[in-house]
Amino acid sequence: MTGMQSALPGTPADVKKVGTLLRQGKVRVTVFGLGRIGLPTAAVFAEAGARVTGVDIMEDVVRDTNAGRCRLTDELGLPEIIKKVVSEGKLKAAVEPSEAVSKADFIIVCVPTPVDQTKTPDYSAVQKASHSIGGFLKKGSVVVIESTIGPGVAEEMVRPILEAESGLEAGSGFGLASCPERSDPGNILVNMKSLPRIIGGLDEATTDVVATLYEAVLGVKAIRVSNPKTANAVKLTENLFRDVNIALANEFALLYEKIGIDSIEVINACASKYNFMPHYPGAGVGGPCLPSNSYYLISEGLRAGNIPYLIRMAREINDRMPDHVVELTSEALNEAGKTVRGSRIAVLGVAYKPNIKDVQLSPIQRVVERLQEMGATIELYDPMYKGEEVFGLQARSSLERAVRRADCIVLGTAHSEFRNLDLGHLSTLASRKAALVDARNIVTPRDAKQHGFAYRGVGRAS
Amino acid sequence: MTGMQSALPGTPADVKKVGTLLRQGKVRVTVFGLGRIGLPTAAVFAEAGARVTGVDIMEDVVRDTNAGRCRLTDELGLPEIIKKVVSEGKLKAAVEPSEAVSKADFIIVCVPTPVDQTKTPDYSAVQKASHSIGGFLKKGSVVVIESTIGPGVAEEMVRPILEAESGLEAGSGFGLASCPERSDPGNILVNMKSLPRIIGGLDEATTDVVATLYEAVLGVKAIRVSNPKTANAVKLTENLFRDVNIALANEFALLYEKIGIDSIEVINACASKYNFMPHYPGAGVGGPCLPSNSYYLISEGLRAGNIPYLIRMAREINDRMPDHVVELTSEALNEAGKTVRGSRIAVLGVAYKPNIKDVQLSPIQRVVERLQEMGATIELYDPMYKGEEVFGLQARSSLERAVRRADCIVLGTAHSEFRNLDLGHLSTLASRKAALVDARNIVTPRDAKQHGFAYRGVGRAS
Repeated sequence: MTGMQSALPGTPADVKKVGTLLRQGKVRVTVFGLGRIGLPTAAVFAEAGARVTGVDIMEDVVRDTNAGRCRLTDELGLPEIIKKVVSEGKLKAAVEPSEAVSKADFIIVCVPTPVDQTKTPDYSAVQKASHSIGGFLKKGSVVVIESTIGPGVAEEMVRPILEAESGLEAGSGFGLASCPERSDPGNILVNMKSLPRIIGGLDEATTDVVATLYEAVLGVKAIRVSNPKTANAVKLTENLFRDVNIALANEFALLYEKIGIDSIEVINACASKYNFMPHYPGAGVGGPCLPSNSYYLISEGLRAGNIPYLIRMAREINDRMPDHVVELTSEALNEAGKTVRGSRIAVLGVAYKPNIKDVQLSPIQRVVERLQEMGATIELYDPMYKGEEVFGLQARSSLERAVRRADCIVLGTAHSEFRNLDLGHLSTLASRKAALVDARNIVTPRDAKQHGFAYRGVGRAS
Repeated sequence: MTGMQSALPGTPADVKKVGTLLRQGKVRVTVFGLGRIGLPTAAVFAEAGARVTGVDIMEDVVRDTNAGRCRLTDELGLPEIIKKVVSEGKLKAAVEPSEAVSKADFIIVCVPTPVDQTKTPDYSAVQKASHSIGGFLKKGSVVVIESTIGPGVAEEMVRPILEAESGLEAGSGFGLASCPERSDPGNILVNMKSLPRIIGGLDEATTDVVATLYEAVLGVKAIRVSNPKTANAVKLTENLFRDVNIALANEFALLYEKIGIDSIEVINACASKYNFMPHYPGAGVGGPCLPSNSYYLISEGLRAGNIPYLIRMAREINDRMPDHVVELTSEALNEAGKTVRGSRIAVLGVAYKPNIKDVQLSPIQRVVERLQEMGATIELYDPMYKGEEVFGLQARSSLERAVRRADCIVLGTAHSEFRNLDLGHLSTLASRKAALVDARNIVTPRDAKQHGFAYRGVGRAS
């Protein structure tokens, strides 16, 4: 840090100064990747007093950021912070990493880690960032990996690259820690400032200085764990808990549909037990985290000769749910005396989850594409994408326009706007004998049937 | 009920009287099965004012109960209630069901529903009880199934038997409802008086009268659901949530052991996230519920052509955990320079869960038997079974006697007595170079190693 030797592990005296130096504007932070996590991270660190540079390979992202424009319009409050910290000179962005890295006390890596088409983790962005960082790393700096990675990737992939490129040794020459982001897209600023952070450094001094920094910036508790791989395991364990439990809800739903039981009634009754946590069935799981997180762990399991079968099967169940929604659509249309081919189908909601502008790996994309393959005409409406192009189609500017003369309505995302749908109105807009498929537990079967729809719902007795 | 026509569905006026009649001693209840659930149910109904007869095929159970002796010594407070209600004449027991059934307003079925060796649900006790009840059923009585059964079994198995035997029709002639017990053995009285009950009758009037009765007797909320099969689905869904999540914890544990991560550290850190619920790995899952509940649902799934694979795999993972404990024992002994053959192994804790006197399907039985097959000499100690015969062995009367000269200590159940084990003392009692295997997260790896044990723990890096 400016005015101090470094945040180098082994200089515990400096750890206590982090908060003070931060407030004095003397801590330099470089954030790699200005996406869903990196951009708010850069903004919040700048707001807390750090001198932040955001590095991104996309020139338009850098340009927008330097102009104080925030690309994440669905993160409440973020555009205002970006505008403020950029105008105050606390945050700037760059494509070129050399200067940003060579001056940084802390380098935070927030680049994406997707899986490829064979579900193999693609760590190329992390590798590329590691090479860039290693090439310009100053002695005593600390590298923090926020990107979600498999346990062991920080130790066995990132560390060797940093050491080879910098000629420094982790521990004595620079610090390396994992501090996986745990935020929920759409709610990132709230999560960042309330959820404890899990921090595992290669050595205790690094863990300590990173914990102190994050506590000072975010005002949250830092949970110190043994090493980077433990921190990464925490991130995966908590997300896979969710993925597996959604798969379990979907498995119950598929069976209960068949034997005439309403899964939603069941789950709500179960919720009265102290050791039950409700998860609901639906069209599947999307977004940047859950659809891929399993594979980081499966990949490590394959290497260790210990495959997590349950986690793998859960993934397959969730991945099959869009096809199930298509089956329900076909059944509901059949009940209305229609085929998918030639039908006009209004899909309401395309985002992978409520109240967010994000269709990354959205299960609704698969639903739309399969219905198109089967010969349906699709009308899209989503309050976050009015008039914009999604899945190769232009989304309608209003719900009414999408639903008009529809043979079937598919509820794809539980946006707040859909929570009080006027089914009577929709039934007058839609074609005379219309179907309704609820993939997100938005309407009750009784309401749908009372309004004359041929109804199907995921997990509902038909 | 005495003094009223009946609890017959369709007489809603009578529903409101249930509480009053109960307090006046005018409600007659017969409970089938005086086991872990039936006995406390009979006692609590009698205590609330019902005139209760307990029917059991075991003559010694009937004799003990009529003498005011409670066989469930681990249910706090139950022996006192049994003694009191029997002495007051409110509870009696019988082997012969005819009189008990013919006079009863409510007949509550609490007989066991185990699975056989091929994991097929064995509903023979429910069928036998249904025949007995049907043969003597008076018009207007209500039959309540508390036994855990698959969704549809009440409708498709119990109902036809009752109708054929009684010549009455469900709905007009008698009522039928499922009200699955949700209690946790060892804590049954507390659960009974605090956990909401899930009640699904074949018709609304039956649901209503049973809900009113249970609310009056137990002082808990009754959650009314659509039908018996929904109530049974609730019971299975909440228990399978637990079974699957324990399997998931075990799956993480097996992988994390291999890649050197401490699962307990991981789970405890995950618990800081709002949407995570911690479950811990261990020696497996035992008792009357979890090891068999999956198969009731799998059985219905097979019939419906929709197999719940995730639930089935979870079961297999949990069933394999005792073998994993044996592997860890073998590894730990190997580190201490010993073989399983010829070793003296002290197994501390045999019950399937803490602070309960129950070894039903305890995973520790499999651990003990496999270690014996491999040539070990087993010494058992369990605070609930001092000096008693368990698994064909006589349990020691003290922990010290079991541990003396042991080559290995296996911690099998997390009884409170084991929570503050004096490892220094144990290491002086055990043989000079001893192993310690913790199957229940009772000691820390650090403590075990500091006391010189060759240590292994389920889910712990070794």
